[in-house]
Amino acid sequence: MENMLNDEIMALVDDILADYEQNRKIDTDKTYSQPDKAMITNILSNLQRIIFHGYYRSQHYRIYTAQNNLSMLLEDVLFNLSKQIMLVLENVAASDEEDSQALEEKAYDICIAFLSKIPQLRASLEMDAQAAYDGDPAAAGIDEIIFSYPGFYAIFVYRIAHELQLLKVPLIPRMMTEIAHSATGIDIHPGAAIGSHFFMDHGTGIVIGETTIIGDHVKVYQGVTIGALSTKGGQKLKNKKRHPTIEDNVTIYSNASILGGETVIGRNAVIGGNTFITKSVPADTSVSIASPELIYRYGDHKEKEKLGEMNQDEQGDWVI
Amino acid sequence: MENMLNDEIMALVDDILADYEQNRKIDTDKTYSQPDKAMITNILSNLQRIIFHGYYRSQHYRIYTAQNNLSMLLEDVLFNLSKQIMLVLENVAASDEEDSQALEEKAYDICIAFLSKIPQLRASLEMDAQAAYDGDPAAAGIDEIIFSYPGFYAIFVYRIAHELQLLKVPLIPRMMTEIAHSATGIDIHPGAAIGSHFFMDHGTGIVIGETTIIGDHVKVYQGVTIGALSTKGGQKLKNKKRHPTIEDNVTIYSNASILGGETVIGRNAVIGGNTFITKSVPADTSVSIASPELIYRYGDHKEKEKLGEMNQDEQGDWVI
Amino acid sequence: MENMLNDEIMALVDDILADYEQNRKIDTDKTYSQPDKAMITNILSNLQRIIFHGYYRSQHYRIYTAQNNLSMLLEDVLFNLSKQIMLVLENVAASDEEDSQALEEKAYDICIAFLSKIPQLRASLEMDAQAAYDGDPAAAGIDEIIFSYPGFYAIFVYRIAHELQLLKVPLIPRMMTEIAHSATGIDIHPGAAIGSHFFMDHGTGIVIGETTIIGDHVKVYQGVTIGALSTKGGQKLKNKKRHPTIEDNVTIYSNASILGGETVIGRNAVIGGNTFITKSVPADTSVSIASPELIYRYGDHKEKEKLGEMNQDEQGDWVI
Repeated sequence: MENMLNDEIMALVDDILADYEQNRKIDTDKTYSQPDKAMITNILSNLQRIIFHGYYRSQHYRIYTAQNNLSMLLEDVLFNLSKQIMLVLENVAASDEEDSQALEEKAYDICIAFLSKIPQLRASLEMDAQAAYDGDPAAAGIDEIIFSYPGFYAIFVYRIAHELQLLKVPLIPRMMTEIAHSATGIDIHPGAAIGSHFFMDHGTGIVIGETTIIGDHVKVYQGVTIGALSTKGGQKLKNKKRHPTIEDNVTIYSNASILGGETVIGRNAVIGGNTFITKSVPADTSVSIASPELIYRYGDHKEKEKLGEMNQDEQGDWVI
Repeated sequence: MENMLNDEIMALVDDILADYEQNRKIDTDKTYSQPDKAMITNILSNLQRIIFHGYYRSQHYRIYTAQNNLSMLLEDVLFNLSKQIMLVLENVAASDEEDSQALEEKAYDICIAFLSKIPQLRASLEMDAQAAYDGDPAAAGIDEIIFSYPGFYAIFVYRIAHELQLLKVPLIPRMMTEIAHSATGIDIHPGAAIGSHFFMDHGTGIVIGETTIIGDHVKVYQGVTIGALSTKGGQKLKNKKRHPTIEDNVTIYSNASILGGETVIGRNAVIGGNTFITKSVPADTSVSIASPELIYRYGDHKEKEKLGEMNQDEQGDWVI
Repeated sequence: MENMLNDEIMALVDDILADYEQNRKIDTDKTYSQPDKAMITNILSNLQRIIFHGYYRSQHYRIYTAQNNLSMLLEDVLFNLSKQIMLVLENVAASDEEDSQALEEKAYDICIAFLSKIPQLRASLEMDAQAAYDGDPAAAGIDEIIFSYPGFYAIFVYRIAHELQLLKVPLIPRMMTEIAHSATGIDIHPGAAIGSHFFMDHGTGIVIGETTIIGDHVKVYQGVTIGALSTKGGQKLKNKKRHPTIEDNVTIYSNASILGGETVIGRNAVIGGNTFITKSVPADTSVSIASPELIYRYGDHKEKEKLGEMNQDEQGDWVI
């Protein structure tokens, strides 16, 4: 390994530098105006400490009062998030010449506006935690939900990202929801509008598209897609409503797909597991797949059987 | 950024402190009795080093004998896991006044009882690794399974979490399996009971519910749900058997859903991909979806076709 | 906690050491020839900095010229990747006695051969980024794709791992794609062959098996399995083509399963969501599930309904 800095390496460097000159679409000249994913992850983690202050308090510094602890965290988020927002504002600015003092002030103002939403975010997340507890017999308590439920982490990140999206911050909201997607398998676009008391159980594979509208008290299980019918139009479809509207009190069981911008799932509807829905469902209606025909084989014998129709269970929930 | 500590920030601090006084359900007064996810991740990583000692040995300290290396790791796990267990015992204790010396001793005893299971855990994980190798033609060797198979990491974490669950440790078992869920997309509740030689291939999207019982030599593919029929009862269903029983030698192909606490999949059964099973399947039986009717379109032509019934392959496995 | 080093711990150490002597399959005597996952993650991260140099440039060292920055990163990758390759070559070597100087040189040569592919990898990833932008109306720009699209991260890691696989590096390619699987929920075997302009949207749950062949301009959505019909043959099936061939310009919508080594999806075919395909589909053909029979219930009323056949949308894409 000693002659590592040899001709071979210099040749590699030259080849790659020459490729950098190709002006590829994966290159950019705004090298110093790029957001930093590690910093955004750190900001989310500090927001978690602020919002769930009793659960994520440092055990090393018991002398801090709640107020000192909070001030410290808030300043940290304000400093770092302002800087990330300034970078992405520079990034989308028409020219490098744009007044960086003005961008800095704009970033700071956005950040203050966002932080002023924290009490509302806490109220909203309290309702989400309650919905998770009420909806899942396996939940031992609110603390288990805060510490370990992936659906709760995903809605926490979504609610933050959505506020920043409303404040017209570029890039960062999607980076945040993709950090949550990576951690949980739940892919919520920050542009989606989601009401109160939202609960996602298990969560892996859930996809909620950009123009989705979801009401209050909605429950969604693993593998559910709330998506577009087709994306063949590509960029020509931008800003068109491509994803469904889900009204209040709807439950959507695992692996259901609900597709299309004109599809409305009416209030109190229950969408059964594995259904594939491409048109609206009226309020107070349950939809399930017709008894699936299955083939049973046993030795040389074979029989087809339609499962008997599924009965109501004791909760009157005959849907799945 | 210089006047950051200005009135705006003080106003934010005051608003959020006032919100902390709302006594929200996402707040807690047991601020200093909370487990630490980073520490639990670290404990899992040290248990990996103990259990697969040949694969995760530090390459920096070649002078340690296996014994010194093991003692060091065991002490580290004992110290940190005891502390985390003590925190969660304090957390669920009726009052802050509870004798912390007694809790400390209880935590220590639980931790020793857990660590004494390590040889059994190693025997069990050896069988799981063998099952993965035997079951996957793409597996190049046991080392590839240990280093890279998500299903193997998930069963490793589950087996640890399940032991702690049996020892009645609160919160931590679920935090552990959710750390694995985040890393692998595989969601196994620590309360599930899973036999030997368990193999999950690919893994993403697998859900195994709290009251599931699984026998020996069971194979499960990506996207399989072993779940509850309905959770509409919420907390009223707690402790009821809500999830299926899977007997020995059952194979469950990708995206099958098996639901309900009274559903039993008999030994040697093979459950085909994409099936939706809500009642019991007898032993030695294969179940597949009936040939799905598909619509083919080509230019102006369109035809419906039932796929011909699927044939047995050379292994006599005609299920998918 | 003071008497931690007591008899109990010594007994644990003895028990576990005795278990290490069992010569279990999860043990190895090549303790010092094991790859290091943290280092491989670090190598991927430095390759990201080299390949997308404008996006991941350190903001702390503005004085570095692009050339110095690149040389530094290349040397780092060369040093660390050579070492990891040498470890896995030692690992599979027939005996510990194998000439370690020869292995070191071989590892170095492989590493240089790999690094010389970087300009080609950049050209290839530029096409993948363009395909993502063209295919997703929600994409705000190429930078959003590079920073946050899980499908783009997964194809980035796959293309690196595939080059190392072609250079016959053991273990490391699969570790790399499993690092991406963990981050994205997308499981691509490094042995698969994937053409240009490949786009995976959302991504969670995608599985692409070892012997899959995919052409150019292919789009794949979340939950799609391109898999084997049955793996019951286990290790006896090794090296047999078990996974499908997907020709150019094919689109595969969410949760479709395409299975079997003799299954060929012809060019321009569109595979609808939730389909289950086990035989070949001709070119220029669209396949969708037949209108699924659904059961609607409203109060005491119940009706079955076949959804009307789905219409073409304005892009002439009548598939889902």
